[in-house]
Amino acid sequence: MSTTATAETFDPAEFRKALGTFATGVTIITACAPDGTLVGLTANSFNSVSLNPPLVLWSLATNSLSLEAFRGAEYWAVHVLSADQEELSGRFARRGEDKFAGLDLDEGPGGTPLLKNCAARFVCRTASQYEGGDHLIFIGEVLSFDRDESAPLVFHGGRYAHATRRDPADSKPRSAHLAGSFGEDFLGYLLGRSHFRFFAQIRPHLADAGLSDEEFYVLSSLTLKPALSDADLNVGLNGVLDDRSQQAVQSLVGRGLARRSPDQSGADEGTAYELTESGRQCALRLIAAAKAVESQVLERLGYNDAQVLKSLLNRLLAVIDPEGKTLWDSASESLSEPT
Amino acid sequence: MSTTATAETFDPAEFRKALGTFATGVTIITACAPDGTLVGLTANSFNSVSLNPPLVLWSLATNSLSLEAFRGAEYWAVHVLSADQEELSGRFARRGEDKFAGLDLDEGPGGTPLLKNCAARFVCRTASQYEGGDHLIFIGEVLSFDRDESAPLVFHGGRYAHATRRDPADSKPRSAHLAGSFGEDFLGYLLGRSHFRFFAQIRPHLADAGLSDEEFYVLSSLTLKPALSDADLNVGLNGVLDDRSQQAVQSLVGRGLARRSPDQSGADEGTAYELTESGRQCALRLIAAAKAVESQVLERLGYNDAQVLKSLLNRLLAVIDPEGKTLWDSASESLSEPT
Repeated sequence: MSTTATAETFDPAEFRKALGTFATGVTIITACAPDGTLVGLTANSFNSVSLNPPLVLWSLATNSLSLEAFRGAEYWAVHVLSADQEELSGRFARRGEDKFAGLDLDEGPGGTPLLKNCAARFVCRTASQYEGGDHLIFIGEVLSFDRDESAPLVFHGGRYAHATRRDPADSKPRSAHLAGSFGEDFLGYLLGRSHFRFFAQIRPHLADAGLSDEEFYVLSSLTLKPALSDADLNVGLNGVLDDRSQQAVQSLVGRGLARRSPDQSGADEGTAYELTESGRQCALRLIAAAKAVESQVLERLGYNDAQVLKSLLNRLLAVIDPEGKTLWDSASESLSEPT
Repeated sequence: MSTTATAETFDPAEFRKALGTFATGVTIITACAPDGTLVGLTANSFNSVSLNPPLVLWSLATNSLSLEAFRGAEYWAVHVLSADQEELSGRFARRGEDKFAGLDLDEGPGGTPLLKNCAARFVCRTASQYEGGDHLIFIGEVLSFDRDESAPLVFHGGRYAHATRRDPADSKPRSAHLAGSFGEDFLGYLLGRSHFRFFAQIRPHLADAGLSDEEFYVLSSLTLKPALSDADLNVGLNGVLDDRSQQAVQSLVGRGLARRSPDQSGADEGTAYELTESGRQCALRLIAAAKAVESQVLERLGYNDAQVLKSLLNRLLAVIDPEGKTLWDSASESLSEPT
């Protein structure tokens, strides 16, 4: 254990960190105060208590501006937030705004404001209120609830986190371990196979256009900058094509899809290239097809898992290739220059 | 919302599912009963209550076999489990075993058994007990705590889940979106770049051995089966090398690293190949180097994120290539045959 505290050395910040090791969902709790004011706040102190009768609880700091409103409200609603509601979580975590401005609301008993598109909602009647140090614990009887299948917003270690399904297979390797050989658990194998199998779904579209993998790679890169120099190609392709990029460019030029750029100012070394009009048409057609392939794959993987996968691949790239400059970086820079 | 229930149509199973949308960590709560019996159970009803005084709560079903022990115990401890403690979670979730058998324990006040290697531990003195329907709510004053930096075990939707850090960048694309072109958010780009950059770290070792990428791929595949036929190569390489696999095999044969297998029984079509002794030595050396590269990358990515990444790549492969048979599958099958 890296950190230990006892009553003598009790550091509130350390205590908060230790509590933060317990992951939680994120909820917004709303009510209509006796004077008709709508109140709402972000809380992760929610939890279930009882199935029969159905009870849930959450706790509120006794110095909260909304304390009196919740203390006096007969009803309140708990909204479990989904992964795409981080912005809503932030809005209800800040003080002193009209938090409900512009939101499309349902109305619950006693005028309780109900938010839409949450992972779940519980409409409750206060059953008990217990003092708990600097917080008041609200126990509510659940009168009604609804639920959606969306991925959850998660809070852990003081920040938002992603949650993804854990496969039973995670704990044990899927294939026999053979001494001194690779298993299918080897990251290099998983990356290689994923890349090649994904690309295999795009390749038929390339074949229709009579393009090789390398030619497609260069063609799509050429859509990103008005003119692409040899140096850009080398940076942008990041060692992917090596010496094959020149060959691919020449082939595109030979087929009328690319040409030497009349404006050679972007070319620090060597020649700059740009798409011809028919090259641009061809690139747009193929990119649309590739994006359609991606959409299908991501839909079957699920939106949340797709986001997590992309996030982890970006994190992996930052680890493998911390200095790596992408073609997209340089494209963005060139866009921000005055034109 | 897909499911709605009101008091009239209150379905306990649906209520449980709705509660399950709120992700939680997983804890084990332990105590030493007044008669000296050690009790412990898995709970996800834990939550923080108050910072000053430091209070936490959890709730226990009134029909629990451990109810009287916890009701009578002055002290109890909450252990927040880390991602690699799923087995411990399962052990303490089952009834009627000697759950502490074989565990290395610390001892807390009043003989409270303390588990080791958890994400956090809170040693508490009972402050209050409140009735909450079919559960009893325990509120404890935290006497001491400790904490580790490990990734959390998470429960969501009735099953274990992974949690990974959510990057602020997730919600907004990192580069300007250019109409009709790829962004670096395109999955095909992320997979391709990850694969090529990862492999680039292995390539210097191949260069030392004078091997091309394709030759290394075939060489390492040959470590998995005593003899590899053309058909195996095609299945196992999964379209990775296409017609280049034959060329790579012939080159390995020419350099004395592989040879035609004298046993051709595994070869349904064409010829079967196997490693020579010097081929085997070379393969083992390179595989060790590749695994060292993987270890470094995974260590910098973090164990938990590495597990999640691998799990998601496997899930992606199941989506892209549901029929895909890997070389490793066929290798396992051949191992399970009587020899």
